[in-house]
Amino acid sequence: MGVDRELPTSEAYDLLELTRDLVAAELAPRAAADEEAGRFPREVFRTLGRAGLLGLPYPEEFGGGGQPYEVYLQVVEELAAGWLAVGLGVSVHTLACFPVAAYSSDEQRRRLLPDLIGGELLGAYCLSEPHSGSDAAALSTKAYLDAGAYTINGTKAWITHGGHADFYTLFARTAPDKGRGVSCFHVPADTRGVRAAPPEKKMGLRSSPTAQLHFDDVRVPEGDRIGVEGQGLPIALSALDGGRLGIAACAVGVAQAALDTAVAYARERRQFGQRVADFQGMRFMLADMATGVAAARALYLTAARRRDAGRPYGAQAAMAKLFATDTAMRVATDAVQVLGGYGYVSDFPAERFMREAKVLQIVEGTNQIQRMVIGRHLTDPR
Amino acid sequence: MGVDRELPTSEAYDLLELTRDLVAAELAPRAAADEEAGRFPREVFRTLGRAGLLGLPYPEEFGGGGQPYEVYLQVVEELAAGWLAVGLGVSVHTLACFPVAAYSSDEQRRRLLPDLIGGELLGAYCLSEPHSGSDAAALSTKAYLDAGAYTINGTKAWITHGGHADFYTLFARTAPDKGRGVSCFHVPADTRGVRAAPPEKKMGLRSSPTAQLHFDDVRVPEGDRIGVEGQGLPIALSALDGGRLGIAACAVGVAQAALDTAVAYARERRQFGQRVADFQGMRFMLADMATGVAAARALYLTAARRRDAGRPYGAQAAMAKLFATDTAMRVATDAVQVLGGYGYVSDFPAERFMREAKVLQIVEGTNQIQRMVIGRHLTDPR
Amino acid sequence: MGVDRELPTSEAYDLLELTRDLVAAELAPRAAADEEAGRFPREVFRTLGRAGLLGLPYPEEFGGGGQPYEVYLQVVEELAAGWLAVGLGVSVHTLACFPVAAYSSDEQRRRLLPDLIGGELLGAYCLSEPHSGSDAAALSTKAYLDAGAYTINGTKAWITHGGHADFYTLFARTAPDKGRGVSCFHVPADTRGVRAAPPEKKMGLRSSPTAQLHFDDVRVPEGDRIGVEGQGLPIALSALDGGRLGIAACAVGVAQAALDTAVAYARERRQFGQRVADFQGMRFMLADMATGVAAARALYLTAARRRDAGRPYGAQAAMAKLFATDTAMRVATDAVQVLGGYGYVSDFPAERFMREAKVLQIVEGTNQIQRMVIGRHLTDPR
Amino acid sequence: MGVDRELPTSEAYDLLELTRDLVAAELAPRAAADEEAGRFPREVFRTLGRAGLLGLPYPEEFGGGGQPYEVYLQVVEELAAGWLAVGLGVSVHTLACFPVAAYSSDEQRRRLLPDLIGGELLGAYCLSEPHSGSDAAALSTKAYLDAGAYTINGTKAWITHGGHADFYTLFARTAPDKGRGVSCFHVPADTRGVRAAPPEKKMGLRSSPTAQLHFDDVRVPEGDRIGVEGQGLPIALSALDGGRLGIAACAVGVAQAALDTAVAYARERRQFGQRVADFQGMRFMLADMATGVAAARALYLTAARRRDAGRPYGAQAAMAKLFATDTAMRVATDAVQVLGGYGYVSDFPAERFMREAKVLQIVEGTNQIQRMVIGRHLTDPR
Repeated sequence: MGVDRELPTSEAYDLLELTRDLVAAELAPRAAADEEAGRFPREVFRTLGRAGLLGLPYPEEFGGGGQPYEVYLQVVEELAAGWLAVGLGVSVHTLACFPVAAYSSDEQRRRLLPDLIGGELLGAYCLSEPHSGSDAAALSTKAYLDAGAYTINGTKAWITHGGHADFYTLFARTAPDKGRGVSCFHVPADTRGVRAAPPEKKMGLRSSPTAQLHFDDVRVPEGDRIGVEGQGLPIALSALDGGRLGIAACAVGVAQAALDTAVAYARERRQFGQRVADFQGMRFMLADMATGVAAARALYLTAARRRDAGRPYGAQAAMAKLFATDTAMRVATDAVQVLGGYGYVSDFPAERFMREAKVLQIVEGTNQIQRMVIGRHLTDPR
Repeated sequence: MGVDRELPTSEAYDLLELTRDLVAAELAPRAAADEEAGRFPREVFRTLGRAGLLGLPYPEEFGGGGQPYEVYLQVVEELAAGWLAVGLGVSVHTLACFPVAAYSSDEQRRRLLPDLIGGELLGAYCLSEPHSGSDAAALSTKAYLDAGAYTINGTKAWITHGGHADFYTLFARTAPDKGRGVSCFHVPADTRGVRAAPPEKKMGLRSSPTAQLHFDDVRVPEGDRIGVEGQGLPIALSALDGGRLGIAACAVGVAQAALDTAVAYARERRQFGQRVADFQGMRFMLADMATGVAAARALYLTAARRRDAGRPYGAQAAMAKLFATDTAMRVATDAVQVLGGYGYVSDFPAERFMREAKVLQIVEGTNQIQRMVIGRHLTDPR
Repeated sequence: MGVDRELPTSEAYDLLELTRDLVAAELAPRAAADEEAGRFPREVFRTLGRAGLLGLPYPEEFGGGGQPYEVYLQVVEELAAGWLAVGLGVSVHTLACFPVAAYSSDEQRRRLLPDLIGGELLGAYCLSEPHSGSDAAALSTKAYLDAGAYTINGTKAWITHGGHADFYTLFARTAPDKGRGVSCFHVPADTRGVRAAPPEKKMGLRSSPTAQLHFDDVRVPEGDRIGVEGQGLPIALSALDGGRLGIAACAVGVAQAALDTAVAYARERRQFGQRVADFQGMRFMLADMATGVAAARALYLTAARRRDAGRPYGAQAAMAKLFATDTAMRVATDAVQVLGGYGYVSDFPAERFMREAKVLQIVEGTNQIQRMVIGRHLTDPR
Repeated sequence: MGVDRELPTSEAYDLLELTRDLVAAELAPRAAADEEAGRFPREVFRTLGRAGLLGLPYPEEFGGGGQPYEVYLQVVEELAAGWLAVGLGVSVHTLACFPVAAYSSDEQRRRLLPDLIGGELLGAYCLSEPHSGSDAAALSTKAYLDAGAYTINGTKAWITHGGHADFYTLFARTAPDKGRGVSCFHVPADTRGVRAAPPEKKMGLRSSPTAQLHFDDVRVPEGDRIGVEGQGLPIALSALDGGRLGIAACAVGVAQAALDTAVAYARERRQFGQRVADFQGMRFMLADMATGVAAARALYLTAARRRDAGRPYGAQAAMAKLFATDTAMRVATDAVQVLGGYGYVSDFPAERFMREAKVLQIVEGTNQIQRMVIGRHLTDPR
């Protein structure tokens, strides 16, 4: 049915239309089967890359799309509505490219960025560890500089695209200081000593591999450190602000897809001699779902426009992530309810949306972490 | 502390600053006492009128402000944050002017509009009746045309500014057909036969008079009918779309004020040896409140921008009204909770915000009516 | 319409019927007017006392009713449904009597208890202070023992019946140790040096006076200390467990009254050609309200039966208080919504119930304190 | 950790202990693997039957347990906490036996009941059809009486144990009258013409087979009709009242299991240098979860005691089903959140509880149907 969007340029309208076409042609026909099989659709990302969708918010001079976040995120939303594994994958790839795009030297940018955002490669973002989930500053993976290269040892956890990515944006400790002793590295996936554990068995988002990554004596040239030594945590947090908007967009996509499924069913299915849609109790539920989706979209776009305008947007991104993912969880759960028994079986996508929604309340900072960020902004503003 | 707004023009920034100054100088010093006494601050509206705030979204050529709805509504929000009786009064006045601004003849526009939007007069909107609250089309006030004038008989209910307005925008039945038999009239308040009942005793919003209005053989010249005969209901509903955005803006204002009160208290007050703001349970509550307020503002602005762009926005206005007022109710109730016992007494404004919030879920279409509007848009789109 | 209760004895059925008769004859005719005027109905408490309702859970040998908590609380619920100021007043009086009933010596019990629970006197419970609301152990009112009497100095805050009670159950510090330095005292209201500040101006519950109490060199004989020195805090917390059940019962009463008002209105009022009750959206709201009320009642009765059986019930009482008061707030807010505009004006009691419900989330431990109690029980059980 | 229950007899305490032992020994070791494989644990039901748990609420003279519903349901709760497929299976079996136990002739009772409730056989309840989900009276399966036997044709949908049960309690139309033309039949599973479709692929509860059942010229002797012709719908609805309590008990079991998992994790796992349980935001969430579980249990037990006392309990059962299942959905979703990433993977049972909880809002009358039942009780009481 298509969301009635307001976009800043006619180019953006074309981009959204292209995205919807790709969703219909490349994602929709295989999403359900691949999700059930837990298959990672690597070639779909190649298709997206060739269509220019893997570097949208990055500079055109290095092969990116030069799009504002406001537009990029709506592309992510449409992809996620079609298949969360793909929408979230694009968001994670964008996150993995961010440190190079924003913090690297001119030389690094010229050398690395075109490959990263040009569409052939896929990235992953390696921050979490088994014992430092929400507390990023507590990470223990270590990097020692010796003879022009760092030797890196440690284990990263919950890595989206782990074992399938072409490069890893990795955070490791170069000094004991908790917050200021972390540095950022670009690590090609085929570097010796990088090894992925078997993927996690997840409730949903099963086509998107999540795995632990082991780094055993991995050698990274000093020239592939991004930013200065000790700048890692600020880089990581800055990247996450944008990443959270990506998750918010994914959540709106999943919620919209769940809503569309529910509305379509309610208009078709009859009970007690009338359409399910004509029962006021059901209509009110649909109205509340639609209102939540619209509010979530408006909120992430507001935050995105702040980013696009160069204004601080961290608290706004946290609000967008919190609100959009809580809304997606509620809307997807209610969508199953609208379909009743049909909602609970895999013949309809409603149950998949519900399983997918849950992960969004957890990734890139649990919603508890978002509340900490927002609370600090309120009670201890700088 | 001031909301960090994004406005389209520098003129708009000036307008918002002017508004905040007026709130601080004219509203804040007297709101609490007038609310307790149930005093209508007629002179405050004169001040607003002289400052140009009573005709903001109407054409400059007739004395209006020529502002987009996006800006006008944020002015309403700031006024409502200071004193709901004033913010809502401006919204109601704007609503009462709308039929003349949008549906009258050129002659009427030239004759009537400058007075209406120029700032000296205050309007009221007379649609509801004792037995047709939510079901506007069932209204029974009658108007008979005879010798170039209509004779109007009937009773209107729940009229904001009833007994205090300078003119009434009145809907009355000119033919039996339920939906197509209603017409719209401009009725100066001093017309013979117009009589206001004593004001309702309300839980809150006590400075804003609400009263029944009796029309006994009231004579209105044919030339003061707005639009053609039978066009009344479409005019009324079209006016309400805008009015709902006004209520949404009021709700965000009340919610923001409640949030600000709660945050300020939590930063000051200490319990168990630390600031109330430092208890994570409290911080999370504040974070959820702030997120709701931000989402509600983003949603009404999205609808307003659709209106400003000339696109359909009725369903979006209903969503904004529903979401913003439900949010205001929740946020204001929680703000009282943050203050604990202090929230329940009139030394702090928190309890007033809670009493004020409730009325917003009811006026200009209860939130049940909004869900009907949204539901129809979803399941029976045209 | 009358709640269909299950009671353990036929005597209990008689007691509930007596209560409903008293509500109809003595409370209902004056509640609205007294609430508006902020009048304390002292004589209603005398009537209740003479009817035996002021000492229900205490031993018959000292003039009490010898009733299990399960029955006593349902009496409180019925009273609160009629008039919260009275139901909560009975609960507070019961709380004030508890230390004497449970912790005093045989001599004290014989000397004091008959007057306290016999019905002529009314008590108040003095624990909170201006700077130690939720943190009871931080209280700073001081009591020094000298020549067989304590001299007490300090200020108590948020005291229900403050200035109107006949006796105060007072907690004061007799030693510096935070938790173990508090003692409990019985203080007749006419003791020299006891002085009440003007009552607070509250959003609701206006017939129930709440005031600060100043104790200036108040002399209390050593024989009127309840329990041993330093036992005050355990006594206070033990009393609060029961008091929280009283508040839970009050909340269920207010919620039931709000529900009954909403159901009655929805069955009478017509819109769009049918009863409001026949709109499914409205029915579903009423169904959710009724379900919440039933669950809240079931929960407080479960906790009460644990108390009656002599089993630990502190965490259960906290759950009952939390759940019942949150439910009452939601149900009362929704009841106003069912009545629409009529819900917002004082012609109907719905708006009073909403204002009353809020205080219950705050008194006898805010709902945040209840969550702390429940959380500790879950994560650090003894 | 074990729920601290109040039971009416020492026999009941023994029964609950036996149940917990069986859960630990027979259910716990295989639940996760069987759920993943979608294996139906038929032999577990045989074990339960031999232990006397398959006929608990039915008369001892026919081999049942003679237990009140209050006790039977708590057994179901414990089983569901261990493995929903088993707890719900017991509830469905009990439902399938109910018509014979309550509506059959003495001869039928003697002939059929001992086998049904004695423990060897497993039953299924065949009411829903593909086109009459919530609207039971619209069923179209037909039964014609001819020569002492009915010939039955039609399709039943969403049948728990479909294809695995030993007997089906079937409702079919014997006359055109919508509500009064339905009759009830006992149909052994090996009757010629009974055929099960392949099981549905469900989001959860995968060890419990759900399937369509086709009845093609199935011959049932007149003596196996339960009750008189046309009594089917009253029988079905009466059975559902009890069945809803069974679902409520299952929901409390799943919610309790999810809560226990979350509490255990929060006490073990550390973040930012302290236990997750020590973050107040997390504790408050756990407190709200525990409060919901306790309220849901109290509510279903209240309804069960009404049934045990022979009082009407249909509206109370609907409330219990609605509240318990909505609570289970919320609690299970929040439990996943407490575990964060670990909650989303199958190494922990949290994700399974969330998938299981959803079905409970749908079966034996969706929660929308429950609200219709409750609403009617409120607004049109008989």
